[in-house]
Amino acid sequence: MEFHHLGVATADASGLAALFAELFDAPVAHEEEFDGMTVLFLELEPGYFELLEPHEGGAISRYLENHGPGIHHVALQTDDIEGALETARGAGVELIDDEPRPGAWGHEVAFLHPKSTGGVLVEFVSH
Amino acid sequence: MEFHHLGVATADASGLAALFAELFDAPVAHEEEFDGMTVLFLELEPGYFELLEPHEGGAISRYLENHGPGIHHVALQTDDIEGALETARGAGVELIDDEPRPGAWGHEVAFLHPKSTGGVLVEFVSH
Repeated sequence: MEFHHLGVATADASGLAALFAELFDAPVAHEEEFDGMTVLFLELEPGYFELLEPHEGGAISRYLENHGPGIHHVALQTDDIEGALETARGAGVELIDDEPRPGAWGHEVAFLHPKSTGGVLVEFVSH
Repeated sequence: MEFHHLGVATADASGLAALFAELFDAPVAHEEEFDGMTVLFLELEPGYFELLEPHEGGAISRYLENHGPGIHHVALQTDDIEGALETARGAGVELIDDEPRPGAWGHEVAFLHPKSTGGVLVEFVSH
């Protein structure tokens, strides 16, 4: 599979975007308000940082409370999320999403439970 | 900059490698013993997972004790680590490594302190 993005939980997406643009030459590729969060995609070559700044309760808000800011998940791109979920199910992996659901930037996404994948929260994404 | 790899702390690199090969079609690209750890690079398109299994004390061993297994850092590839460190220094970022040092797989590497970068542990790598 292809690396698509690294999700980062933050309380200050625009400040972190400005720093990452300076340090990593990673300009903003896309910005939107989604699911109670400011979501900023910063361009790598290839792939993205996805900065997630919550404005209300939810998974990222709880993550910030429990862990502080930092890397939250890795997203891998596939054209066949349902097939990838079927493979994961067959391998005994616990799924967070049984089926693809809409994500930011018009993506279809589905998450695997990190307790099945070595503590790594993995998102399948169809971009 | 280019995404190079995602570093993952684990107590079972070979078991996680077998699972990731099945789930993500990410075969082993390189394996070595380095700095008291088994280090496995798994191929993405492009980039790698870097699985780090410590056999003695050290940063990854402490990470596993304090946080459990999971994503440890992200590595960004640059042909000019010293220039990238200079830019970071100029932006007021605290450095873990003032100069590039040898990493696994013959890389030159240098880490930035995550408290300066939104909780994200960033490695510069010259592959």
